[in-house]
Amino acid sequence: MVVIRALAAEDRVAWQDLYAGYHAFYDRPDLPQDFFDGAFSRLMAQEPGEFRGLVAEEDGTLSGLVHYVFHPHLWRPEGVCYLQDLFTAREARGKGVGRALIEAVYDAADAAGAPAVYWMTQEFNYAGRMLYDRVAERTPFIKYSRAL
Amino acid sequence: MVVIRALAAEDRVAWQDLYAGYHAFYDRPDLPQDFFDGAFSRLMAQEPGEFRGLVAEEDGTLSGLVHYVFHPHLWRPEGVCYLQDLFTAREARGKGVGRALIEAVYDAADAAGAPAVYWMTQEFNYAGRMLYDRVAERTPFIKYSRAL
Amino acid sequence: MVVIRALAAEDRVAWQDLYAGYHAFYDRPDLPQDFFDGAFSRLMAQEPGEFRGLVAEEDGTLSGLVHYVFHPHLWRPEGVCYLQDLFTAREARGKGVGRALIEAVYDAADAAGAPAVYWMTQEFNYAGRMLYDRVAERTPFIKYSRAL
Amino acid sequence: MVVIRALAAEDRVAWQDLYAGYHAFYDRPDLPQDFFDGAFSRLMAQEPGEFRGLVAEEDGTLSGLVHYVFHPHLWRPEGVCYLQDLFTAREARGKGVGRALIEAVYDAADAAGAPAVYWMTQEFNYAGRMLYDRVAERTPFIKYSRAL
Repeated sequence: MVVIRALAAEDRVAWQDLYAGYHAFYDRPDLPQDFFDGAFSRLMAQEPGEFRGLVAEEDGTLSGLVHYVFHPHLWRPEGVCYLQDLFTAREARGKGVGRALIEAVYDAADAAGAPAVYWMTQEFNYAGRMLYDRVAERTPFIKYSRAL
Repeated sequence: MVVIRALAAEDRVAWQDLYAGYHAFYDRPDLPQDFFDGAFSRLMAQEPGEFRGLVAEEDGTLSGLVHYVFHPHLWRPEGVCYLQDLFTAREARGKGVGRALIEAVYDAADAAGAPAVYWMTQEFNYAGRMLYDRVAERTPFIKYSRAL
Repeated sequence: MVVIRALAAEDRVAWQDLYAGYHAFYDRPDLPQDFFDGAFSRLMAQEPGEFRGLVAEEDGTLSGLVHYVFHPHLWRPEGVCYLQDLFTAREARGKGVGRALIEAVYDAADAAGAPAVYWMTQEFNYAGRMLYDRVAERTPFIKYSRAL
Repeated sequence: MVVIRALAAEDRVAWQDLYAGYHAFYDRPDLPQDFFDGAFSRLMAQEPGEFRGLVAEEDGTLSGLVHYVFHPHLWRPEGVCYLQDLFTAREARGKGVGRALIEAVYDAADAAGAPAVYWMTQEFNYAGRMLYDRVAERTPFIKYSRAL
């Protein structure tokens, strides 16, 4: 039985294991401890305009996480919800954890009065897109970034 | 001679003409006056976390606009700059107005200490992409949105 | 133990089961018997410029098929090999059947002196692309078709 | 007044100028003379299953070319028409030459009883796609090629 709940202080160690797994997927395997300390601190801050975290827990073990933030949007005075990080532990895949985490963000966005939720994924993230196509709409928008 | 400068209160009428042109491009030709009033007010507010506007002016006429906002990013403590709206008047195209506006946002992002600038565009926005490919990097990221 | 071999007359019935499964995947579930009769006849004809078929067989059961043809290419006097249809039975997936079929086409193309093999797939054929990314190169080419 | 007509022996020199321009666009600026000799010979051969060429002529000058071939297709007994090369001289762009060449291929395909015409283009061929979107359908198919 998977439960989705807010990230809590006692998740500190298990959360980092998951979040490091997520970054390893994106070829960032060796992030410094400072990075994790800073991110967790922000997720716990509960400040307006700051990131929130949700986790999936099953039998006392964290099997997934999602981070999201509300940010301004000029066309939508209520703002939009950006789902930045989504990750399910390898051993928990195929059980609906990712879908449950996304839907929990939808619920949080509804509760905040900013129901427009979006995220970005690499075109070749096939496993992710199998899920995303079922719970969201693929838009024709692609991302450009300043070369730094 | 095109000058890029901050959007100002006296641009109210000319700005709406441009911004309505932008929305018409995206098949939103009949936005209510309230929409423009609200957006302009926000652009003028100069509040932290709120949108800013820049315009291109040539011989006293506005020929382009860009709107951008800084928002939190969990991997980058300094935040990122989201360039939401970019538009050049039809009669001013091909003269570098779009590029000058994007580069002015780069400068604003540098000045704010959050140099990572990004935007999204439709895959089939060929005219826009001809420019974007010269001043930025196309990423492999595509956007998914909650179906509302 | 999967064996890849040329399609043979005695495969007529099993081949149609597989090929109908392939077309059902592309939302063509009800092709007439004539269609299958004609295609099988062509695959058996062994004429220059006509399609060839290979099948995967395991313990006397067909678990996959591939059809390919050589066609002229103006830049390559030796022609190119177009791999049109590739299908693995649902119950045989994950065992390397698709890869073995593609590699057998590579071998046939080498033997024919026309080693350039290509195929097209829908951008959202995630399961297929997981395989294709390992055995081939995704090109930046997209297909346009006359509207009929 | 642009006329579209079959490539003819007397076009040999002007055709090579155009076709070299086409290949330069695809970063192949230095093809050997043999390549052009062979391609022209094939285009003139009028053999079944071999490429055909059409050119756009205006005031005695060639301003564009297109090459196409019919090849077998297992789902379509009548075969399909592959439009391989399309090029308009830089100084002739914006006058409908490309569209007229494509439509002439459509006519040739109709006359041959194989009306399905397709081609491939790089996703970032913006100028081409502005035209293709008006005369054809963008499909969701992308091309994979064997790595050689």
